[in-house]
Amino acid sequence: MGIKTGDQYVESLRKLSPTVYIGGEKITSVVDSPFFATPIREMKKFYDWQSDPETKDDFTFHSPITNETVGFWTHLRQTPEELLAMVETMKRTNARHFCSMCMGIGLSVLWGVTWEIDRDKNTTYHANFRRFFEHLQKEDLRYCLGVMDPKGDRSLPPSRQPDPDLYLRVAEKRDDGIIVRGAKAHTSNGPITHYFFAMPCRAMGEDDADYCLSFAIPVDAPGISFITRPAPGPLAPKEFECPVSTRIGFTESLTVFDDVFIPWENVFMCGEWEYTQKLIGLFSPYVRFAKGTCTSARIDILAGTAALIAQANGVPGAGHVRSKITDMANASEIGYGCAIASVQKSVMHESGIPIPDNGIANAGLYHTRTRFAQFLGTLQEIAGGIVTTMPTEQEYSNPEIRPLIDKYFQASPLVTAEDRMRILYLIQELTASRWSGYLIASAICAGGTPETNRMEVARNYNLLEKMENVKAICGIN
Amino acid sequence: MGIKTGDQYVESLRKLSPTVYIGGEKITSVVDSPFFATPIREMKKFYDWQSDPETKDDFTFHSPITNETVGFWTHLRQTPEELLAMVETMKRTNARHFCSMCMGIGLSVLWGVTWEIDRDKNTTYHANFRRFFEHLQKEDLRYCLGVMDPKGDRSLPPSRQPDPDLYLRVAEKRDDGIIVRGAKAHTSNGPITHYFFAMPCRAMGEDDADYCLSFAIPVDAPGISFITRPAPGPLAPKEFECPVSTRIGFTESLTVFDDVFIPWENVFMCGEWEYTQKLIGLFSPYVRFAKGTCTSARIDILAGTAALIAQANGVPGAGHVRSKITDMANASEIGYGCAIASVQKSVMHESGIPIPDNGIANAGLYHTRTRFAQFLGTLQEIAGGIVTTMPTEQEYSNPEIRPLIDKYFQASPLVTAEDRMRILYLIQELTASRWSGYLIASAICAGGTPETNRMEVARNYNLLEKMENVKAICGIN
Amino acid sequence: MGIKTGDQYVESLRKLSPTVYIGGEKITSVVDSPFFATPIREMKKFYDWQSDPETKDDFTFHSPITNETVGFWTHLRQTPEELLAMVETMKRTNARHFCSMCMGIGLSVLWGVTWEIDRDKNTTYHANFRRFFEHLQKEDLRYCLGVMDPKGDRSLPPSRQPDPDLYLRVAEKRDDGIIVRGAKAHTSNGPITHYFFAMPCRAMGEDDADYCLSFAIPVDAPGISFITRPAPGPLAPKEFECPVSTRIGFTESLTVFDDVFIPWENVFMCGEWEYTQKLIGLFSPYVRFAKGTCTSARIDILAGTAALIAQANGVPGAGHVRSKITDMANASEIGYGCAIASVQKSVMHESGIPIPDNGIANAGLYHTRTRFAQFLGTLQEIAGGIVTTMPTEQEYSNPEIRPLIDKYFQASPLVTAEDRMRILYLIQELTASRWSGYLIASAICAGGTPETNRMEVARNYNLLEKMENVKAICGIN
Amino acid sequence: MGIKTGDQYVESLRKLSPTVYIGGEKITSVVDSPFFATPIREMKKFYDWQSDPETKDDFTFHSPITNETVGFWTHLRQTPEELLAMVETMKRTNARHFCSMCMGIGLSVLWGVTWEIDRDKNTTYHANFRRFFEHLQKEDLRYCLGVMDPKGDRSLPPSRQPDPDLYLRVAEKRDDGIIVRGAKAHTSNGPITHYFFAMPCRAMGEDDADYCLSFAIPVDAPGISFITRPAPGPLAPKEFECPVSTRIGFTESLTVFDDVFIPWENVFMCGEWEYTQKLIGLFSPYVRFAKGTCTSARIDILAGTAALIAQANGVPGAGHVRSKITDMANASEIGYGCAIASVQKSVMHESGIPIPDNGIANAGLYHTRTRFAQFLGTLQEIAGGIVTTMPTEQEYSNPEIRPLIDKYFQASPLVTAEDRMRILYLIQELTASRWSGYLIASAICAGGTPETNRMEVARNYNLLEKMENVKAICGIN
Repeated sequence: MGIKTGDQYVESLRKLSPTVYIGGEKITSVVDSPFFATPIREMKKFYDWQSDPETKDDFTFHSPITNETVGFWTHLRQTPEELLAMVETMKRTNARHFCSMCMGIGLSVLWGVTWEIDRDKNTTYHANFRRFFEHLQKEDLRYCLGVMDPKGDRSLPPSRQPDPDLYLRVAEKRDDGIIVRGAKAHTSNGPITHYFFAMPCRAMGEDDADYCLSFAIPVDAPGISFITRPAPGPLAPKEFECPVSTRIGFTESLTVFDDVFIPWENVFMCGEWEYTQKLIGLFSPYVRFAKGTCTSARIDILAGTAALIAQANGVPGAGHVRSKITDMANASEIGYGCAIASVQKSVMHESGIPIPDNGIANAGLYHTRTRFAQFLGTLQEIAGGIVTTMPTEQEYSNPEIRPLIDKYFQASPLVTAEDRMRILYLIQELTASRWSGYLIASAICAGGTPETNRMEVARNYNLLEKMENVKAICGIN
Repeated sequence: MGIKTGDQYVESLRKLSPTVYIGGEKITSVVDSPFFATPIREMKKFYDWQSDPETKDDFTFHSPITNETVGFWTHLRQTPEELLAMVETMKRTNARHFCSMCMGIGLSVLWGVTWEIDRDKNTTYHANFRRFFEHLQKEDLRYCLGVMDPKGDRSLPPSRQPDPDLYLRVAEKRDDGIIVRGAKAHTSNGPITHYFFAMPCRAMGEDDADYCLSFAIPVDAPGISFITRPAPGPLAPKEFECPVSTRIGFTESLTVFDDVFIPWENVFMCGEWEYTQKLIGLFSPYVRFAKGTCTSARIDILAGTAALIAQANGVPGAGHVRSKITDMANASEIGYGCAIASVQKSVMHESGIPIPDNGIANAGLYHTRTRFAQFLGTLQEIAGGIVTTMPTEQEYSNPEIRPLIDKYFQASPLVTAEDRMRILYLIQELTASRWSGYLIASAICAGGTPETNRMEVARNYNLLEKMENVKAICGIN
Repeated sequence: MGIKTGDQYVESLRKLSPTVYIGGEKITSVVDSPFFATPIREMKKFYDWQSDPETKDDFTFHSPITNETVGFWTHLRQTPEELLAMVETMKRTNARHFCSMCMGIGLSVLWGVTWEIDRDKNTTYHANFRRFFEHLQKEDLRYCLGVMDPKGDRSLPPSRQPDPDLYLRVAEKRDDGIIVRGAKAHTSNGPITHYFFAMPCRAMGEDDADYCLSFAIPVDAPGISFITRPAPGPLAPKEFECPVSTRIGFTESLTVFDDVFIPWENVFMCGEWEYTQKLIGLFSPYVRFAKGTCTSARIDILAGTAALIAQANGVPGAGHVRSKITDMANASEIGYGCAIASVQKSVMHESGIPIPDNGIANAGLYHTRTRFAQFLGTLQEIAGGIVTTMPTEQEYSNPEIRPLIDKYFQASPLVTAEDRMRILYLIQELTASRWSGYLIASAICAGGTPETNRMEVARNYNLLEKMENVKAICGIN
Repeated sequence: MGIKTGDQYVESLRKLSPTVYIGGEKITSVVDSPFFATPIREMKKFYDWQSDPETKDDFTFHSPITNETVGFWTHLRQTPEELLAMVETMKRTNARHFCSMCMGIGLSVLWGVTWEIDRDKNTTYHANFRRFFEHLQKEDLRYCLGVMDPKGDRSLPPSRQPDPDLYLRVAEKRDDGIIVRGAKAHTSNGPITHYFFAMPCRAMGEDDADYCLSFAIPVDAPGISFITRPAPGPLAPKEFECPVSTRIGFTESLTVFDDVFIPWENVFMCGEWEYTQKLIGLFSPYVRFAKGTCTSARIDILAGTAALIAQANGVPGAGHVRSKITDMANASEIGYGCAIASVQKSVMHESGIPIPDNGIANAGLYHTRTRFAQFLGTLQEIAGGIVTTMPTEQEYSNPEIRPLIDKYFQASPLVTAEDRMRILYLIQELTASRWSGYLIASAICAGGTPETNRMEVARNYNLLEKMENVKAICGIN
């Protein structure tokens, strides 16, 4: 039927038993582990948005594939207008919730690439993929995306690493499937999803054919181990001092594949190295418009926070504060604008999906994400040094001490000391916590780095045409 | 019929006799004055594009107003798609010709504002404006746009200036029309257009009602004087040394109105100070998406030029050169992307025209134009000091000297010394000439300054909504 | 004798019994509290440097005041050469230890200000201060510096706050001393120092006279409470995962003065509001050259870390990596250069201390500190997303898992997986931890904000002289 | 006697007859050519400063070489204090005159390099150079500095260029001297100096030995031709409209050496390729601290101009204007501060001259020069579009028109319209003229480019030491 509730999701997790190492031990139930409490709560929230009357219009769609209602995370966008709606939903949602888990875009990328391989090579990858997709849609399942390999020595391609396993690879091909060995890094929330969905992280050459691999497999398939790092927030909710990390946080895993069997019907790419370049070419504009939107929305949070603390401090109208918030607004608009424009200038792929403009998407993201990291400092400047010197919630809960804190943290008469502390604790989360490290990492490293953006802008920019124009201007034949 | 040729345009100029001071004297015929040779040649080119098979598709339109074919410069865009087409045409054209004379957008602004005034006040401004518009369309006429007043003491509004004429004003209202006194600054190409089209440059208060003025009048109406500054290029063509300023250049005038009579049917606004804010609000997104596109296209020229001279110098692949060109590409994509997005997010005005998004348009332009000024230095860096130390064309034309120049200016074997000099002379035009001053001014001052962009971004940014979102995040009621 | 060892320091702490709230309770012995273990270890290290043959040349001095050897933290620098030596010591030390606890410069500021007050007003503040100073030198004592007040509504001066205690104030003057009420924020390491040393945080007017207050008092004086926030590292050492925060960390306190008695001989300023401007004017160049040096040295750490992880990843020579490290080097040199230049251009104060150039000191710091915040993002970019997704030490200590981590974290053959993890954990400390929040705060908020730097640069810049020069250039009388 | 007057300088020029091509012809007397009027006037001014009671203290020195008084331009600085005095003189002078012709620093560089070659190779270059130097000092002569070669294909070293003459080279060695062939680019003011002083522009290898060449020769030596480009200002003074370019401007030449004979006693380097690296290493900090100082002083002019026009426009206190001027002040202080610091950290060369710190000098200049180019746009923004649309002096001289201009250019009541026009014309010179192209070029290209600065900062930065520090921090052996 395509739509689960949060509770149904949790039930579905109980049916899986992935191998998970976390907190120094192997755990037996993710649902019952405190390490997964926050991530599961967050995932439930997303599921519930699909049924909530206030949000369901944004988070459910009619799928022509299943002819059923499906959710935000399993829907295939087939027009620029659908991508535009996605931008708008993410912009609105992330400005309140930081993240709307956009990795669903990986599906679009594989949809297009598998279609091309089948067209050219008489394979059945696209059919496999479509079947997997229908399954996801019908059951409203989630997957974790394994793109990045451990990569070993960054100066060498996969096939020339001293250890052959530093990129995930086919160790053996059988009649019924393939044996996969190696690992993927940065698996977000892997143990609390249903499927592991792998794809290559870079363009590869012929020698690297064994590393050109895409497939999906249940997270508890034999041989898969998640070496998992807890989400950066507290294990038990601390809503006052940790308003964000109490609610939002991913676990991250190094996912090891120790000779995992993948049946052919779950394989979407296996050795077709000529298509890795294409895959990256499709992945790039998708991930960049999404991240551009996301970063724009997160800057909106920084701007709103800056305005709130300036107000609480009694100086909402200070010239330099307004100027700094305008800097944030500028970067937000550029990130958002370029996301919209890249989608607006989409060209249609033969497989029936739009491909956004890569140059605009990357240029906008590059600007926005590099500003983002600066704005954390800006936010601290507007808030003041108190962000990292204020008492903890333990002191504030001490009845002997609380009146003193209330007295000395009072600033603008319009805002209570307690509310000012709430804002300051939020700023601590955003700029001075383990969670803030994620925020920078998400801005800077996730979905390719700023340097990747530059490369993509350069690649996409028709410099030759510009040179020809200039030759005409100065009369050179 | 709506489309003139360049020759017909020149003929039409002969029928007008504006009062023009230039080069220290009063001239009697703009068509025969060497001071106007370059600007007229450029205007002719634009006219001819409307008939040229290669360009006419981009530069002619069907006008629902006249039900005839009309040109790029007199067409009223009524859908976001038409604005998008305008962006694309300007992006393509300006990357080869620097300018496509986009001031036609002023018409859209007045279209909307007059419509509102008539709606609210039972006036006939919109009808007047529409009639003027039809006239422009049918005869394919050009106008110069007088927006900026001399402004006197910038700390005072119009009505409090010591001299009452420092903003253009109504000196007298008669039954048949109004008498106008004062001046407008920065009138581009005024004497070689057909009409002077005035509008207010800022939001005004009730006391400033006499300064809230919009009208159109033939450029040779009695009482109008153009105190004119020549275009920044040579009077006689110098295509080798001055490849740009030989072909492209505006005259600029201080246009003085010494009690000029404007019949009521040519008046589009007269005293309705409450609508000046609105007028600025419409003008802003129009001029900003246009200038954002334009600046993007001009950065494309800088990028193409940088690539050409790097090639001519023998170092097309130097890391820092490629990185600097990528910086240019980034800024170009952001300017272009935000122009597209602002148009894409247009809302329709009741009068039937789209209003682009003001925040995105201003943010994109702000980024692009401020980078533009930097890139002139970047271009000189890539080219080398030779740009301002190389011999002039006079030396190159000296047969005794030319072989020495050819010998010592040879760099990459792929480019002749002469072609290298052409590129270097172009860079001189772009960075080290009177014309380059225009280029900076056009980027920085025309159509509002970077500071204006910041104010518009701030105004358009819904900070309150962002603050509410953040309150929800940190649990403040 | 002027020099204590670390152990003697700890002993001296045992003789004090400050009132300290931390971790939700009131503690009785800082020496025995785990919350102070790291800060005390760090303080001991500083003490021991004064005796260590390798470091003592940099950290001991001959004091003309006591005619004895004194340490780095109690010495009064009386020549530009001594300040220059301080710059060199801090540059070298902080590049390895992050901090050399430079707050000793507060002594210089009061030395000068009290001298001026005594000169003008026949007071004995300078004599008081000198006596206190001798005591510090002879006993090698430490003080915590209380500059910043809670400040309440930032739009109001101290005397107009609704609650009169939001800046520390004189509540009563007695024959033998004064009664002080209010609080100071951001008291670094207060409970493990010997004296609390207060001074005003801003220029004040006549109405604020009661708030113009400087004094020193033992930290365990009756009525003082330290509401203390733990240092941001682990309570028990974790050298592998937390190599910095295990060794380095300040506690921070809100220090409340509940009618604390200060004998007159410990008072250095009490009501002389006309000298607060002067105090800020002296404080500014001192704190700015020190922080400029410090931030430069910390950028050196970022640069060294970036180079190490690039090497460990196998791409030490990647163009963009080298370019980013060069950006760091540039900012480091500017911070260091401007610190040196400001000291070099010192003018001598009548009291016998050099006053560094305020404009250069602030300009250099402004540049360096704002780049610093950006570089944290840069460092994550060079390191890769693994910084916030890598397994924790708990997993690495699990013998079942460790071989997998060793296998998949191996990158360059020149660096072991373990060493690569050490570098990555360091980067986590620097960019993605509670400690990294301190690092940003220290760069951005400590010792005045970037906005303060701008104000000081503007104030110090002789714009009038520049305007006169330009008048001469363009022939204006 | 070591000091000439301006008139004596002109007389001395009459005794020389260099071969000069300019304005399309060969001229016979530089003194009588209008093309050299401005440059000679400027040079005379510098000479006269040496006698003017107001300036002579800054511009004359005791030379231990001749034991006589010598001028600013022929003095060898032998202590850091002397370099510091030079910084102060340039900072003060250039803030009023733009340039103090600092190329005298070339002498220091050769002093050091020739000393090393003689030390190692038993040559007499240093003796030759000292004799030349004494001659310059005693006669108060000027030289033009020929550093940059035409360079041909930038991807190839001198010896591998298709045409062997694209770097200046020894074509033949004789008993009595050498025959030199090739050219030097960018010879500033060559024909109005007494000597051409050549040195290599880059580090070279053994194969390039014939290109490692330094010598001095009278500018009218047989075989030398100056292919000269006029200074960028008007030929006849236009003090109102062209206040800068009327007074200040260099000619620039391509100087061709067609088998020029140089006697051995005038040769300072001939084939010693191992010392070119050293020469560059000495040249770098000298030229960078000088240019850093110069650019700082020029930014002071921009700041003063910005403040004047803001005042004239009636908005001296506008927040964004003050913020932009503070940006300028910041960049000015950094340029100045790093120049001072680099000199302060000089190490003494064995030959008796100080070598400033290369890293700090380059970092400061890099920052300052790249900001400079931006500030030209900033200045236009503050001034307004009128800079490039205002009437020319020809209109202002027209008595019919002048009253209108006076009326409409009046802004602040504190500044006359005429004075406002003077400021605007100055801004035109600075940002929108052929002369402004020089200003950018001087900031960006002269004395090495920003990219060169980055390379020098990187080279000078002891990254290995930083890596070792970081290893210690994270416990790596």
